[in-house]
Amino acid sequence: MRFVIQRDYLLQSVQDVMKAVTSRTTIPILTGIKIVATEDGVTLTGSDSDISIESFIPRVEDDKEIVEIKQTGAIVLQAKFFSEIVRKLPTSTVEIDVENHLQTVIRSGKSEFNLNGLDAEEYPHLPQISEENAFRIPTDLLKALIRQTVFAVSTSETRPILTGVNWKVENSELICIATDSHRLALRKARLETEADGKHNVVIPGKSLTELSKILDDTAAMVDIVVTENQVLFKTKHLLFFSRLLEGNYPDTARLIPNERKTDVVVNTKEFLHAIDRASLLAREGKNNVVKFSTIDGNSIEISSNTPEIGKVVEEIQTQSVEGEELKISFSAKYMMDALKALEGSEIQISFTGAMRPFVIRPLNDEAILQLILPVRTY
Amino acid sequence: MRFVIQRDYLLQSVQDVMKAVTSRTTIPILTGIKIVATEDGVTLTGSDSDISIESFIPRVEDDKEIVEIKQTGAIVLQAKFFSEIVRKLPTSTVEIDVENHLQTVIRSGKSEFNLNGLDAEEYPHLPQISEENAFRIPTDLLKALIRQTVFAVSTSETRPILTGVNWKVENSELICIATDSHRLALRKARLETEADGKHNVVIPGKSLTELSKILDDTAAMVDIVVTENQVLFKTKHLLFFSRLLEGNYPDTARLIPNERKTDVVVNTKEFLHAIDRASLLAREGKNNVVKFSTIDGNSIEISSNTPEIGKVVEEIQTQSVEGEELKISFSAKYMMDALKALEGSEIQISFTGAMRPFVIRPLNDEAILQLILPVRTY
Repeated sequence: MRFVIQRDYLLQSVQDVMKAVTSRTTIPILTGIKIVATEDGVTLTGSDSDISIESFIPRVEDDKEIVEIKQTGAIVLQAKFFSEIVRKLPTSTVEIDVENHLQTVIRSGKSEFNLNGLDAEEYPHLPQISEENAFRIPTDLLKALIRQTVFAVSTSETRPILTGVNWKVENSELICIATDSHRLALRKARLETEADGKHNVVIPGKSLTELSKILDDTAAMVDIVVTENQVLFKTKHLLFFSRLLEGNYPDTARLIPNERKTDVVVNTKEFLHAIDRASLLAREGKNNVVKFSTIDGNSIEISSNTPEIGKVVEEIQTQSVEGEELKISFSAKYMMDALKALEGSEIQISFTGAMRPFVIRPLNDEAILQLILPVRTY
Repeated sequence: MRFVIQRDYLLQSVQDVMKAVTSRTTIPILTGIKIVATEDGVTLTGSDSDISIESFIPRVEDDKEIVEIKQTGAIVLQAKFFSEIVRKLPTSTVEIDVENHLQTVIRSGKSEFNLNGLDAEEYPHLPQISEENAFRIPTDLLKALIRQTVFAVSTSETRPILTGVNWKVENSELICIATDSHRLALRKARLETEADGKHNVVIPGKSLTELSKILDDTAAMVDIVVTENQVLFKTKHLLFFSRLLEGNYPDTARLIPNERKTDVVVNTKEFLHAIDRASLLAREGKNNVVKFSTIDGNSIEISSNTPEIGKVVEEIQTQSVEGEELKISFSAKYMMDALKALEGSEIQISFTGAMRPFVIRPLNDEAILQLILPVRTY
C-alpha cells in the first residue's frame, strides 16, 4: 500500500473515526485504525465493537486530486500515535507507505515516521447491512432529535434498556423517547420520504451522543437503515454503525397525563435562571430539590432551604396561571435539563396535582414534551 | 453592614480573591471571603494562609458611584456559594445586608438569598508590611518574568527550596532563577527605579502562578515589598501577599558553562515542532528522550526510537552550526518548555560536549537563558 494524501482530509477522517476508538478494549487490534487504499480512494475505520465508524476519502473531489494512489493495499496503525502524528505533520501532503510487510513509513517534508503496523486481515468485519427499510432525515433535525432526548436516558445499568433511546417509526412519523424513570423526554418528527417500514428499536444513548459529535450542522440528508440488531447512519462519506439494545422498551404512553389542573405559561430563560439560582444552595444537600408555588394567579415562587448554609427565594412574573393553586417540589437538575432541551421563548407547564408527573412544552408546539416526576416534600 | 454595589465590580473582586481560597484548608474560616465595608468602599479578602489577596472596590471611580454604603461593618461569607451567587444574579446592582447578627441577605431584582455568615473578627489578620525596601516593575514585565522561569521549579518536595523561584535584587537589577536540578531558567530585568535595597528571597512557584493569573496585561507599575518572610505585590486596588520559602537557595552560577564547543543557531518554531513530533513516540517509554546530532555543518537531526512502536527522524536546516560535531540526548519535554519560554524567532544553543549542561538563548539577548542537563544514551 502506498499513497500521497492531502493532510487536512486525512486529519478530518482520522478525527471522525477516532470517536469510535477506545483504549479500553479487550480486542487489541481495535486500538488501531484500519486504512484501506483502493483505486477509488482511501477508507479509514475505527471501532469499539459497539460503535463502528467508516470514513471514505475519494481520490478526486470537485475536480481536485485529494489522494494519489500509488499501490493499493491495507494496514492497521495504532490510533493514538497515528492521530497525533497526522495532527502535527509539517506539510500539507503526506505519504503513507507500507514498505516491508507491516512496517509503515509516514513522510511529510523532512519528517519521517516509521510505525509498526498490524495486519488488516485480522481487523473485525463491519456488519453487512442491506439497504431495504431505509428512511432519511436532514442532519440538523437528526442532531436536534438527539439533543432533545438523549440527556434523559438512565446512567445506571440496573435496567440496561433505559440507557438507550427508543426510536419508533410508524405512519411516516419518527418518535424518540428517553426516560430514566424519574423524567422523560419525547420528540416527534414527520418523515418527508414515504417510509412504509415500521420500526421499534432502542439505540444506546452513548452511540447517539458520539454520532451527534461527528455530524455537521447542515441540511444534507442522513440515510438511516435499521436491522434486527444494528442501525446504520449514512452520510456522503461516512458510515456510522451502532448495535441496538436487546429487550422491550417500557410502554411510556400511560405515564403522560391527559388531564391538567394547573397551567402555567412563563418565559423560558427567566424561569431557567431562577431555577439555577435557587438550586445553588440546594446542591449541597445532594438532593437538589427546589419548591415551586403559584402566588395570586399571576406569579410563581421558586425557593430552597438548606439550614446549614441558607435559603433562596425567587419570584417570577408569569404570562398566565390557570386552574388550581399549587405547591410542588422537583429536582432542579431535571428541570434545567428539560428547559435547555426545549426550543421557544415561552413554555407551558401543565400540572395535575402535587404528587403527579407534570409536563413541560414549548407554547403551541406538540412535537416535543418533557415530563418530570415530583419529589414529595410538601 | 449594608451596601448596594455594581455587580460587575463585585464579581471581578470576588474572582480575584477566590484565587487564594481553597476548600482544602484546616482553618474553617478560610473557606470564606471576608467583606469589609467602610466609608471609602468595600474590601474583599481571600486567603489560604500561604497566599492572601485583598481587593478594594472604591465608593466612587471616574466620577461614577460604584458602592453606596448604607452602614459600615464586616462579615465572612462561604466563598463557594457567595461567588456562584454573585455570578448568577439577575440585575446589575446587588444589595448586601447583614440583618441579624450574622444572617446576611443578598438581594438582586426579585431574587433574595439568605446566607449564614461567620464573624469577621475571627478572620486571621494579614501581615503588616512596612513599605520600606520597595521596588517597582511594570505588570507586563512581571508576568513575562514569571512565565519564563516558574515552569522550571521542582514539583517534588524532596528539596522544598527548589519549589520556589529565587529572586535577587542587586545594583538595580532583578535576577529570577528556577531549577529542579535537571534544568534551569534564568531571567534578568533592569529596575527603572533606583532600588538601593539588596534582596535574596525564594518565592513559592505556586504563588507566582496565581499572581500571574490575576494581573492584567498592562504597563501599570506593580510595587513589590520584600520582608523577612513575606513578599507583597501591590497594584492600584489589589494587594497580593505570599509567604517566602525558608532556607538558602543553591548557588547556581557555577552550573552555567562559560566555554562553548558547538554553537547552533536555528529557527525557534521549526525546532520546537520537530522536537514535538520526535517526542510523540518517545513519550510512551515515559523517559521522553530524543537524540540530537549535527550533520555536515549546516543541519541537525532529531530522532527517537521506541522499538515496540516505531521511530521518527526529523531533519532541520540551521542558520549555522559552528565548532565540533556533536551527538547528545535530552528530555524533549524540558526542551519544549524552554523553547516556549523564550522570545525571538531564532535561538542559539551552546554545547560544551555530550555530557555537559547546554544553554539556550534567543539570538543576541543576554537577559534570558535556559539550561538543560543532557541524558546519557549515546
